[in-house]
Amino acid sequence: MFANKLAGRYACIGFAGVVRIGGILMEITGLIDEVRKQVKEWRRQGLTVGLVPTMGYLHEGHKSLIDRAVAENDRVVVSDFVNPIQFGVNEDLDAYPRDIEADKRLCRQAGADLIFHPEPEEMYAPDFSTYVEMQKVSEGLCGKTRPTHFKGVCTVVCKLFHIVMPDRAYFGQKDAQQLAVIRRMVRDLDMDIQIVGCPIIREADGLAKSSRNTYLNEEERRAALVLSRAVFHGEEMMKNGERDADTILSQMRKIIEAEPLARIDYVEMTDADSIKPLARAQGRVLTAMAVYIGTTRLIDNFIMEV
Amino acid sequence: MFANKLAGRYACIGFAGVVRIGGILMEITGLIDEVRKQVKEWRRQGLTVGLVPTMGYLHEGHKSLIDRAVAENDRVVVSDFVNPIQFGVNEDLDAYPRDIEADKRLCRQAGADLIFHPEPEEMYAPDFSTYVEMQKVSEGLCGKTRPTHFKGVCTVVCKLFHIVMPDRAYFGQKDAQQLAVIRRMVRDLDMDIQIVGCPIIREADGLAKSSRNTYLNEEERRAALVLSRAVFHGEEMMKNGERDADTILSQMRKIIEAEPLARIDYVEMTDADSIKPLARAQGRVLTAMAVYIGTTRLIDNFIMEV
Repeated sequence: MFANKLAGRYACIGFAGVVRIGGILMEITGLIDEVRKQVKEWRRQGLTVGLVPTMGYLHEGHKSLIDRAVAENDRVVVSDFVNPIQFGVNEDLDAYPRDIEADKRLCRQAGADLIFHPEPEEMYAPDFSTYVEMQKVSEGLCGKTRPTHFKGVCTVVCKLFHIVMPDRAYFGQKDAQQLAVIRRMVRDLDMDIQIVGCPIIREADGLAKSSRNTYLNEEERRAALVLSRAVFHGEEMMKNGERDADTILSQMRKIIEAEPLARIDYVEMTDADSIKPLARAQGRVLTAMAVYIGTTRLIDNFIMEV
Repeated sequence: MFANKLAGRYACIGFAGVVRIGGILMEITGLIDEVRKQVKEWRRQGLTVGLVPTMGYLHEGHKSLIDRAVAENDRVVVSDFVNPIQFGVNEDLDAYPRDIEADKRLCRQAGADLIFHPEPEEMYAPDFSTYVEMQKVSEGLCGKTRPTHFKGVCTVVCKLFHIVMPDRAYFGQKDAQQLAVIRRMVRDLDMDIQIVGCPIIREADGLAKSSRNTYLNEEERRAALVLSRAVFHGEEMMKNGERDADTILSQMRKIIEAEPLARIDYVEMTDADSIKPLARAQGRVLTAMAVYIGTTRLIDNFIMEV
């Protein structure tokens, strides 16, 4: 159905087609109108719809989100869009890895029904001027180093929610602050969407899966293990009853500082929902970090209810 | 159906009930969940839904919006909410006139199906922290004198759109910049809602209908006619071929300045969609003004395609 529209006015900036591999049919489009049309058709049939928003270069972490969405919804849309407005001026927008062909294979194998892969021009008109902004929840942790990041995230996710109108949307706990920000946005703006947070997926040696891991050379890849080692150590301390934030965080920092290639951006303990700093672990606790390994900024965290 | 929920946890902050006058049935609720439930039931039945967002104290201007919504949709929701976050610190939030009983009568007579009349606590949690902000379109005209106004408008309208999920929403051209801001928000955030702008409704002597007209004493009420007189004069000049903004605006200003009780906030000519100032009338042109009559700030405008 999408191919018919290829001759239309958007043909230059988007694309649409049907991917057939192994007899399974999955559609891909770059056009907002096509997504809307397809989702409305599904709605008319009484089907539920799940959305997995991604920036592409999909890995096992994304796959776990898609798997869960496929299990919980009749139809699943994966958005695959490197959102320019969530990158700061000196960040890695241009370098961010892309591989749409590999993404298509992963989505098809996971059982997704539609990939939305727009060009930036389809999402942002030249005179685009509306943003969703958040106070407080977006200000600590990553919000300190990346002051415009969550404004870009909220805006694009709000747009994706309006385009796809899903029943449920799936986000990884790897980006724990992003998950808190999205939950808060959905609550504050009365969006009728269930936000599903999914556990961090790790490499066999512990490193949290991330599209940015591809930036690491061999030596850095080894050095990057300090993040997960610090996470596991902090988790262990809390399991053993330690509640003092300074005690836990200083031991975690020591692990990271022992690695010459690592430079800490932050290692902090906050409430997992409000992202307010905690001096003592209480309630649903997020212990999160951002660490530069060489020039690559990686994040990791654990959430524990105490 | 709503009355059953009165015993629930929201009973203290909202209210729900059925208004029966003259055999016609119209529901009123203060609860987001009740609105959602009702609208979902209508959707299930395949009915279209129109929304008329208001701050209450309804007059013939609002009635013209409801009439149009009733004519174009199977069901009509009127929201009746004095939105605190669109008032500045020294503005008239507390003084803003309210009369829900009269509003109910007008809505019933106009054929609305549901009034949403929430308390501020139902709309804004104590830790509310998400806002929809706009650049450019919201910055000129009223945005200069009321720098946080359109942020409050965009945020509440975004919430109302998510709560009601209407097919169409109706706004008066009296608030011309608000209409431009809402249209831009809907376009930028990909909301699947048709925005319908409706003409200004005037008193017999020309004064644009406004809930704020109630602030005027007899002498001020007479003085307030300088707004519509200036509007009609500017309109006449443009009809007669005048295109130079300065020429048109200076004559309009003269009319207003002749009235001792009037103090100009602005009289300007802009593009009606982008709200960019124009030196020469071209395209869809908005000529707009805000004028204090005593302490009451009134607005008026005309839009002409040239």
